[in-house]
Amino acid sequence: MSPPVCAIPGAGPGNGRALARRFAAAGYRVALIARRDETVAASAEGLGAAHGYVCDVTDGAAVEATFKAIAAELGPVETLLYNAGNAVFGSVDEVEAADLEAAWRTNTLGLFHCTRAVLPGMRAAGAGHIVVSGATASRKGGARFAGFAQAKAAQYSLAQSLARQLGPEGIHVAIAIIDGVVATPRTREMMPDRPDTFFLDADAIAESVYQITRQPPSAWTFEFDLRPFGERW
Amino acid sequence: MSPPVCAIPGAGPGNGRALARRFAAAGYRVALIARRDETVAASAEGLGAAHGYVCDVTDGAAVEATFKAIAAELGPVETLLYNAGNAVFGSVDEVEAADLEAAWRTNTLGLFHCTRAVLPGMRAAGAGHIVVSGATASRKGGARFAGFAQAKAAQYSLAQSLARQLGPEGIHVAIAIIDGVVATPRTREMMPDRPDTFFLDADAIAESVYQITRQPPSAWTFEFDLRPFGERW
Amino acid sequence: MSPPVCAIPGAGPGNGRALARRFAAAGYRVALIARRDETVAASAEGLGAAHGYVCDVTDGAAVEATFKAIAAELGPVETLLYNAGNAVFGSVDEVEAADLEAAWRTNTLGLFHCTRAVLPGMRAAGAGHIVVSGATASRKGGARFAGFAQAKAAQYSLAQSLARQLGPEGIHVAIAIIDGVVATPRTREMMPDRPDTFFLDADAIAESVYQITRQPPSAWTFEFDLRPFGERW
Amino acid sequence: MSPPVCAIPGAGPGNGRALARRFAAAGYRVALIARRDETVAASAEGLGAAHGYVCDVTDGAAVEATFKAIAAELGPVETLLYNAGNAVFGSVDEVEAADLEAAWRTNTLGLFHCTRAVLPGMRAAGAGHIVVSGATASRKGGARFAGFAQAKAAQYSLAQSLARQLGPEGIHVAIAIIDGVVATPRTREMMPDRPDTFFLDADAIAESVYQITRQPPSAWTFEFDLRPFGERW
Repeated sequence: MSPPVCAIPGAGPGNGRALARRFAAAGYRVALIARRDETVAASAEGLGAAHGYVCDVTDGAAVEATFKAIAAELGPVETLLYNAGNAVFGSVDEVEAADLEAAWRTNTLGLFHCTRAVLPGMRAAGAGHIVVSGATASRKGGARFAGFAQAKAAQYSLAQSLARQLGPEGIHVAIAIIDGVVATPRTREMMPDRPDTFFLDADAIAESVYQITRQPPSAWTFEFDLRPFGERW
Repeated sequence: MSPPVCAIPGAGPGNGRALARRFAAAGYRVALIARRDETVAASAEGLGAAHGYVCDVTDGAAVEATFKAIAAELGPVETLLYNAGNAVFGSVDEVEAADLEAAWRTNTLGLFHCTRAVLPGMRAAGAGHIVVSGATASRKGGARFAGFAQAKAAQYSLAQSLARQLGPEGIHVAIAIIDGVVATPRTREMMPDRPDTFFLDADAIAESVYQITRQPPSAWTFEFDLRPFGERW
Repeated sequence: MSPPVCAIPGAGPGNGRALARRFAAAGYRVALIARRDETVAASAEGLGAAHGYVCDVTDGAAVEATFKAIAAELGPVETLLYNAGNAVFGSVDEVEAADLEAAWRTNTLGLFHCTRAVLPGMRAAGAGHIVVSGATASRKGGARFAGFAQAKAAQYSLAQSLARQLGPEGIHVAIAIIDGVVATPRTREMMPDRPDTFFLDADAIAESVYQITRQPPSAWTFEFDLRPFGERW
Repeated sequence: MSPPVCAIPGAGPGNGRALARRFAAAGYRVALIARRDETVAASAEGLGAAHGYVCDVTDGAAVEATFKAIAAELGPVETLLYNAGNAVFGSVDEVEAADLEAAWRTNTLGLFHCTRAVLPGMRAAGAGHIVVSGATASRKGGARFAGFAQAKAAQYSLAQSLARQLGPEGIHVAIAIIDGVVATPRTREMMPDRPDTFFLDADAIAESVYQITRQPPSAWTFEFDLRPFGERW
């Protein structure tokens, strides 16, 4: 029996890389998907089970081709971890229409494209997992998140529509509401005065996502929040 | 003193026309905005205070030009009633990427364009009202609303970001969560077996929207739902 | 035809008194209900249409007797404005079990008692309004609101159960989510450094509540928030 | 080093028994708490690590005495799994004030009492877990759940207040929103026509609760829903 396949659009440092590591450790073949070759290469480094795919998730034809290649090379995708994002911060004065659109395309349209690409295989298997990396902004439109929050809200809504439709087909859709900043070299450098406890640890997130994909169909989670213990909320 | 100006993108039959009637009755000059000339003409008919503007709200340059014309011809916009919508129903199997995008552009991007167009005038006046026509789908992604709900969720989120930012500047942003089907000749014909009590009355919606714009700044509503009394929810 | 009757449990200074004033101005006979005689008397002062009733809303038998007296003396209650509250602030360390219980009894159990008392009359009339004074805490349990928030959450939930059941019977149930501090002599004195714009104006709240009771059954609101324009949320 | 201690108020068949089994399997000493001796005895049967305590969680003094006994006999409580509940179903016409009160006391007041009882020990340890068994009714007041939903809403709110306060102290508070009916001999008998897939499996719930208590402090979940895959929501 061949190992199960996990595809990770948005396979950058932070969550993407940590998810890859966790699922590889569990015996998955991992397809890392990102727009740029360097990103994919960096995330795949040292992970024998990881295979890189360069693809812009907002491009429907490219997504279709990429997932065909994944199926051919690794096998049908059992688990889709949708981690692609695009963070444009700022108020209505600070963001432009193009920022709103780019955020929506990456967070929401890309999820639609990837879901359509994996659905035939999951339906054929009568099983599958789709876990989306959401954010606090998925549920709350802050004044300074006019561009980002609308995209995460649309993504959350689409994930909910998918969960409601696909659950009865045996396909488990869930969303992690990540409430805080994930520690990466870049975020640590941007916020040098913050203590370790301010940041979410990407490996801890990946572990929770992995556990969600272990749930038997008789008790599935759609939504779970994740925040560092010291976070005020 | 010249009468206040109210702009209504999405000025079709149903809510658009009813809002125009209500604000005209209150002494407003009303700018009706829709994509097609016939829509604008039909909604303006018999409303002396109404002026029609043909404009695609998803086109930023067209929106800017239209609102410049409104300001020149009618005066600065005091109240923006964002009623433009685009309903593509269906599950993830039934809608296409282009449907999701069209829904998002009309519901969310158009709101952004129109808000940017009216903000300078509202800020100069230190006051203004923006009321958005939302839907149940703004807060809930149903299985058969994969295209529509994500767009309304993004719109809701953007409205919330706007409300949080603009409230302290004296600009009131609100959203009506319309939970049900508005009676129009078209919806009545599509659902001939439904009793009168199944439908929302557009004039009743318009009255509630009007009252929201009467609230003094010491007690502003952001969100209010509207449903027919017999609706199961 | 005799004037309609409005009953206001929690008829103290602030919202209670302002609601009485607003509905009296609209031609209602107003039954002011509070635990203490002085409260009732102070709120009734100068309001010819107001009649005071001393009653502890947490006592089911007393509520039944009071509403019988109101029906006999003023007529059947058409509108119930449930404004009784009990604010015990503090964290889990600062509040005691008795505080949680008192808060729940006043906010939630009292609403149940009063609803049961007015329902027969409203059902006989095939119409009626019940509007509850909620709070931000109705939807959010803050760290320092361990006693208060649980009671407002229970009250909100009960109001929602009532709205869902009674709507189809023609009885309109709504809740105002009051997000901020209402200006009263006492709150102004407690927070002397806050500007006028920090506070909600009770008359503005009362006006919005009154407008909600004007909605025709084809477009009823269940929930609406109210906050001063400068409030950060 | 002595094994960690887990206390389970509401240790009946279904979730209570399954939680006990799961934590016992992980090496915990388990304190089973229920009102009746038979309940405790039945749940403890065959679980060597389980110790029964008869206690009414709505009685503050009894709760204090029980947790003193647990600390003395088993050691300080590291994990509190609050599973006590009281389901009175029915509309506002079908439930009585006493039903609302009993539901609130068991779901909410009992959680307060038990939290107060375990807090000193958890604070001394600088760590601890409190997981509450919530329900769909925690977030939604249905027409036929007037008694139950208000109690679960209050419980949810209290859990949220606790999570916000205790998180920064290193104590993890979470709530499982259980959306459906848990399979027990009694529920299966009550709904004989329902297929297996209609029911939640208590062991699956217990596994998810257990995993939540494994999360490192850098990524804690407060809220997660659990429903059988075929559930319409």
